[in-house]
Amino acid sequence: MTFYLIGLGLDLKSLSLEALEAVKKCQKVYLEIYTVDYPYPSDKLEKVIGKRVESLGREKVENESIILEAKNKDVALLVYGNPLAATTHISLILKCKKEKVNYGVIHSESILTAIAETGLQLYKFGKTASMPKFQKNYEPDSFLDVVMDNLKVKAHTLLLTDIGLTLEEALEQLEKTAKKRNLKIEKIIVCSKVGTQKSKIYYGSISQLKKKKIDMPFCLIIPSELHFVEQEALEVLSEKA
Amino acid sequence: MTFYLIGLGLDLKSLSLEALEAVKKCQKVYLEIYTVDYPYPSDKLEKVIGKRVESLGREKVENESIILEAKNKDVALLVYGNPLAATTHISLILKCKKEKVNYGVIHSESILTAIAETGLQLYKFGKTASMPKFQKNYEPDSFLDVVMDNLKVKAHTLLLTDIGLTLEEALEQLEKTAKKRNLKIEKIIVCSKVGTQKSKIYYGSISQLKKKKIDMPFCLIIPSELHFVEQEALEVLSEKA
Repeated sequence: MTFYLIGLGLDLKSLSLEALEAVKKCQKVYLEIYTVDYPYPSDKLEKVIGKRVESLGREKVENESIILEAKNKDVALLVYGNPLAATTHISLILKCKKEKVNYGVIHSESILTAIAETGLQLYKFGKTASMPKFQKNYEPDSFLDVVMDNLKVKAHTLLLTDIGLTLEEALEQLEKTAKKRNLKIEKIIVCSKVGTQKSKIYYGSISQLKKKKIDMPFCLIIPSELHFVEQEALEVLSEKA
Repeated sequence: MTFYLIGLGLDLKSLSLEALEAVKKCQKVYLEIYTVDYPYPSDKLEKVIGKRVESLGREKVENESIILEAKNKDVALLVYGNPLAATTHISLILKCKKEKVNYGVIHSESILTAIAETGLQLYKFGKTASMPKFQKNYEPDSFLDVVMDNLKVKAHTLLLTDIGLTLEEALEQLEKTAKKRNLKIEKIIVCSKVGTQKSKIYYGSISQLKKKKIDMPFCLIIPSELHFVEQEALEVLSEKA
């Protein structure tokens, strides 16, 4: 019996052949739906993998009962993108070790590498930042520390946003926070549906980008100094204003 | 007619369903063999994808003739790992734009995210460093600048090595360069076959790791300060000495 932690990648059919083989063996297939919004209807996913899929929220992932279930049957947990890119799922693997449950990790494409579609060089990306949704009287802005750390060493920053944050809100929050911290941000990149066949890249100032109609899901990139090859690629690959 | 730039991922069957569908449509399928050593026999790959594969060296990729070929037929270029993680292949996409050739990029798992198997958090990785093979009287050590930049902002470093460098040589070069630059490196991580079902993680001092028998392909990680959760995961997930 085995627990499979499986990445679905970013498109409906971007799971791997190996992932499909593993899923076919499983008596139980779960879809993780709390660290990310799975952007496709689950019946379409069920059609692709040929199995019923049960959605799994935070509580049921965190109590790790699915690992105990994998003592008696083959169980798969499907995760949008790469299954270990989010910070939480390694704990499931540690639980497998502790409970002596066999496991397999099957990777897939991740937003962390799909952003190479912008023309920016992946090896020049620094730490990844994550922007939460601001609340009234609670505006945690440590994501900007990450951006500033990266700029210090000439690294680009991928800025991911929490579930439920619209692009407009994200741009507002970024603008507000940068202003408060006296960080001048000239131009940024917005990636829409990156890693899928509908990928679009936008490049401009925050105020230019605010005016665009851009599809979800999205992510932001705060570029550091661009190499001229990156600059050229970005100009060619981004949507025209 | 379309040019497909396709990632094979790290295992023999880690290409995606979407990738397989694209390959099936192609009249010509190439395998890129100069930025990385493809670690499986190509007849095994041919069996997986059900097509003949022609190996393509540096010259034939760089002269971009395959893009012109895609004006008249569907052409796929298969790349080990993620197809845009290496710095060079974006130029093929730019060529497609210039020549008005339809193209599709189909991603896959990359070493850049598969290293999450170590238990280290991906969002804490900084810029990626690349170590060349030292020649007599030519020992380019700028990879260590990247490591030092990353350490400055508490970021881990993935250190990739050039084709033809053995682990033993890489560890020697790292040790020698760090000494020359007065950088004290306590413990590092070696990942062997990461992203595959034979993945193994080793954690120790350079001199400890030199004594180990570790399978290719490998990569090195120079960790920055480890969060206790990372430390714990690493202890659990790495091979015992």
